[in-house]
Amino acid sequence: MATLVLVHGSWHDGPLWEPVAKHLRDRGHEVHTPTVAGHGNGVAKDVDHNDCTQSIVDAITAADLHDVVLLGHSFGGTVIARVAEEIPERLKRLIFWNAFVPAPGNSLNDELPPHYREMFAQTAAASDDNSVAMPFPLWREAFIQDADAELAASTHKELSTEPYQPFLDKLDLTRFYASELPKSYINATEDTALPPGEWGWHPRMSGRLGLYRLVQLRGSHEVMFTAPDRLATAIEEAARD
Amino acid sequence: MATLVLVHGSWHDGPLWEPVAKHLRDRGHEVHTPTVAGHGNGVAKDVDHNDCTQSIVDAITAADLHDVVLLGHSFGGTVIARVAEEIPERLKRLIFWNAFVPAPGNSLNDELPPHYREMFAQTAAASDDNSVAMPFPLWREAFIQDADAELAASTHKELSTEPYQPFLDKLDLTRFYASELPKSYINATEDTALPPGEWGWHPRMSGRLGLYRLVQLRGSHEVMFTAPDRLATAIEEAARD
Amino acid sequence: MATLVLVHGSWHDGPLWEPVAKHLRDRGHEVHTPTVAGHGNGVAKDVDHNDCTQSIVDAITAADLHDVVLLGHSFGGTVIARVAEEIPERLKRLIFWNAFVPAPGNSLNDELPPHYREMFAQTAAASDDNSVAMPFPLWREAFIQDADAELAASTHKELSTEPYQPFLDKLDLTRFYASELPKSYINATEDTALPPGEWGWHPRMSGRLGLYRLVQLRGSHEVMFTAPDRLATAIEEAARD
Repeated sequence: MATLVLVHGSWHDGPLWEPVAKHLRDRGHEVHTPTVAGHGNGVAKDVDHNDCTQSIVDAITAADLHDVVLLGHSFGGTVIARVAEEIPERLKRLIFWNAFVPAPGNSLNDELPPHYREMFAQTAAASDDNSVAMPFPLWREAFIQDADAELAASTHKELSTEPYQPFLDKLDLTRFYASELPKSYINATEDTALPPGEWGWHPRMSGRLGLYRLVQLRGSHEVMFTAPDRLATAIEEAARD
Repeated sequence: MATLVLVHGSWHDGPLWEPVAKHLRDRGHEVHTPTVAGHGNGVAKDVDHNDCTQSIVDAITAADLHDVVLLGHSFGGTVIARVAEEIPERLKRLIFWNAFVPAPGNSLNDELPPHYREMFAQTAAASDDNSVAMPFPLWREAFIQDADAELAASTHKELSTEPYQPFLDKLDLTRFYASELPKSYINATEDTALPPGEWGWHPRMSGRLGLYRLVQLRGSHEVMFTAPDRLATAIEEAARD
Repeated sequence: MATLVLVHGSWHDGPLWEPVAKHLRDRGHEVHTPTVAGHGNGVAKDVDHNDCTQSIVDAITAADLHDVVLLGHSFGGTVIARVAEEIPERLKRLIFWNAFVPAPGNSLNDELPPHYREMFAQTAAASDDNSVAMPFPLWREAFIQDADAELAASTHKELSTEPYQPFLDKLDLTRFYASELPKSYINATEDTALPPGEWGWHPRMSGRLGLYRLVQLRGSHEVMFTAPDRLATAIEEAARD
């Protein structure tokens, strides 16, 4: 059985993993779902990417976890790549689930198509606290299109604003790219949070991992809400020896 | 429940939607399947693209339909894009199912790979009435490869010749591209009617829609015949709020 | 019912088809699984590509087979393309299953991404007999990632070293590319033996076939071991009239 640490993406926090975590625990795995610094409701949004990384490093070391299978979703990919640079000795494998694998020296923002870069910059500038809220039409059409209207609405209410600075911080990632940790990429085949093709997740992001294990499943970017059992199965296949 | 108007593609006519329409009606939807001008057997083929568009506009206005979810298959995509320019006030959403979304100013022909352009031009020139027939080997191998031999043959017998002029007419589409109507794209993952890759349906056509909802299903370009229930499910997911 | 000749890929031999062949025989097909020259354990590895081709030609003519549906997996695609040049009169259809379809004049090596070319050249140079062994991590992560650890290990033990010279031989293929034999391409959607994208199997290889029938199934490059029934179904769909 695996020791899994699941790192959420933008607009999410740790408790939102619960449906997936339950399926994984029912199958015998140990599952941790820490919240990344600056994420969730009622917390300050003035964090940078190092704060995000440090919060996950702290969660793993505080619980004294070893042989961790560390999974990052979406923005969480940038975090697990950095965590793998800080505490590789505690990790067994990295899993990127429709996650960013920034090219060396890039920020997450550098990996976004232009229309997202503009939208996020404008939204953050218009906010009180340099954060970005998720517009419902974008959520419903491009992030969670495999949900019915009710689930799309109820999950949207659980989101929180995303701190913008971590999108902008350049990530060196030299040690990550030199790492020989085994790596998996989970690709949900209907994920359009990044537009398929030139700017898509797979194989653009996955192809940067060198030798990696691909697991695909049907579903949107938010299949954690629409089919948590299916995602749990994909995570098991990505995590196993 | 949705009010659906299904616009067929080349070589098809409205009655060929019957298996899909039945599944949708059984689930409570109102379904209309008009035949595009110049399509079907026993009709004159000397129509242009405006005639095609007008015939669908007329079908919708004659039935006084409102809040229409308008779906176009293949060539039908060029028709629904134009209908959305003429009577947007009657429409609720556009669904493109492995359909052309011509770049502004392009004809359908401009979107075809060279081997199709040559084949269709030669076939139309050799015809009595500037129309194009569907060769059986192309139908069987690239359009309906998920059928058994019997279904491939029986469906081929139901096809009619395609008027060629609507392939050639340039479509301005300025108003379509400015429209804020919600849009969905249904992609059958084994569709090879357009060759996958550089000339493929998805993401080449879908990516032109701006924000859109992607729904994928297994099947060929003619999954309406080989798995009408599966297509009906995809249409429901593409059509819902 | 079809007369099927299944041509294995690199590191494989004919007997490894047994699980798939059993499913196909149970469904009434005649199935032959010859071993390509220089492949398998306990045989000399000093063969060239012509020897490989000739060994399959000999198997077909010795059994006096006609109306053969000839399937090639991976490296086997280069062999069936050449067999189709030698004995087209005995063949009914070609099926490429995640197989190489070399561009005219290319060797298999010419179709490989640079990291494979380097790895295979170094491994062959370091061998006693100009052959290449399959490293377990590559097998487990990129070839058979849909297996559990036990099946990944047990199948790896059944592999044999691959003669290197057939990778290097240039293949003219003029007669293959002029052939009007019907062709199918089976694509396993999780196959990462070639990296997805620029260097991937589909549509890079399939797109060279001209008019062809696409059949897709879930699975890795070695779905013959992980889901032989599913592959048998795909072969039936690719083989039928």
